[in-house]
Amino acid sequence: MKQQGILFVMTGASGVGKDTIRHAALPDIENLYFSISATTRQKRPGEVHGKQYYFHSKDEFQTMLSSDGLLEHAEYVGDYYGTPTKPVKDALARGEDVLLELELVGARKVKEKMPEAIMVFIAPPTLSELERRLRSRGTDSEEKIQKRIVRAREEIKAVKEFNYVIVNELLTKAVRDFKSIIYAERVKSKYITQQDIARFLKEL
Amino acid sequence: MKQQGILFVMTGASGVGKDTIRHAALPDIENLYFSISATTRQKRPGEVHGKQYYFHSKDEFQTMLSSDGLLEHAEYVGDYYGTPTKPVKDALARGEDVLLELELVGARKVKEKMPEAIMVFIAPPTLSELERRLRSRGTDSEEKIQKRIVRAREEIKAVKEFNYVIVNELLTKAVRDFKSIIYAERVKSKYITQQDIARFLKEL
Repeated sequence: MKQQGILFVMTGASGVGKDTIRHAALPDIENLYFSISATTRQKRPGEVHGKQYYFHSKDEFQTMLSSDGLLEHAEYVGDYYGTPTKPVKDALARGEDVLLELELVGARKVKEKMPEAIMVFIAPPTLSELERRLRSRGTDSEEKIQKRIVRAREEIKAVKEFNYVIVNELLTKAVRDFKSIIYAERVKSKYITQQDIARFLKEL
Repeated sequence: MKQQGILFVMTGASGVGKDTIRHAALPDIENLYFSISATTRQKRPGEVHGKQYYFHSKDEFQTMLSSDGLLEHAEYVGDYYGTPTKPVKDALARGEDVLLELELVGARKVKEKMPEAIMVFIAPPTLSELERRLRSRGTDSEEKIQKRIVRAREEIKAVKEFNYVIVNELLTKAVRDFKSIIYAERVKSKYITQQDIARFLKEL
C-alpha cells in the first residue's frame, strides 16, 4: 500500500488547453487533489476566488512569500503565481496524489525541491495553432498574445526535462493520455513494499 | 515521431487473468502487435493453432531452437514455450508496438536481450484467490494446480524486476490500468526528438 501520495506537475503554454484537459479528466480520477494556485493576475470574467485561483494583491502575495507559505512562485508576463505549500504536503502525507498546474519556472522549482515529482508537459500541435487558440479565447491583448508565443517557443525547448509530453491536437486523446499517466504511475512497481509481498505470501 | 516501436512484456501466474485482460484491452489499442508464442503444451478445448499459440511437438520446437528462430524459450511445468523472433523485430522496426505474454523465465531473457522492454507483472490479489481461479478453470489436474501455486509464490518475489505491477482484483480496473500503461509509455518525453522540436519551432 502506497504510504505517500504521488505529486504530478502539469505545465504548458497559455492557451494550450491545460484547464480543458484537467476539467475533462479530473471527475474520472479518484483520490487526486488539485492544488489551487495563488496569483496576482486580474480575474477573468466568470473566474471565482478559490476556484480557478486564489486572487491576491501584490502586497498580499509578498506577505505569503515572506512567511514561507509558498512551495514555488514565479513571475509570468507581469504577474505573480505561487503554490501554497501546506495543502500540498498535507494531501501527500495522507496518501492522496496531488496535481499542480504551473508555469515552467514554477515547475522547475518544484522539481528541484521534490525530485520525485512526475512532470507532464502539454504542447500545442504547432505555434500557429496556439496563436489561433489564444486569439479565439479573446482574453489577452495583441501584445500579450505575442509575448505568450515568444514564451511558448522558448518553453518547448524544455520538454526533455519532463517525464511525459502530450501534444494536444485531439482533445479526447489528450485527456485519455493524461488520465493514463496518472493511472500508470500509480501501478509502478516501486510502490510495492516488502511488507506487501510478505503479506501476500502469508495469505493462503 | 517514434521511429522504433515499444516492446511490452506481460507476465503473471497461470490463472491470474492475463488473457482476459489482454482480450479486453487489445481491441481498444491501435498499433499494438500481439506476438503469438510457440508451445509444446497440449491444446485446450477451443484453442486454435496460430491463435492462442502455435502448437508444436517437442521435436519441431527443438528445430526452431537450433535454427535461432526464438527470442526466448522456457520450460514451464513440463512444457516448452518460445517467442518467434522475426515477427517481433519486424513489427518494432515498422514503428509498431509489440506485446509479449511470457512466463517469468522467458520475460527475464527478453529483458536481458532488449533492456528497453517495458515489463508488466499481473498479480493475483491473494494466493487463495489464484487457487480458486485455477480450480474453476477446470483445465489442470490437482497436482498441476499445486505446482502452479508454488510457482506463483516464487514469482511474486520478482515483482521489483518489473516496471509495473497490476493486482487483478477488479477486472475493469486491471484492464484500465493495462491500457493506461501502454498509452502513458507512448507519450514519454524520450520519444520527442530534436527534429520534432526543430520542426515545431519552424511552424509559425
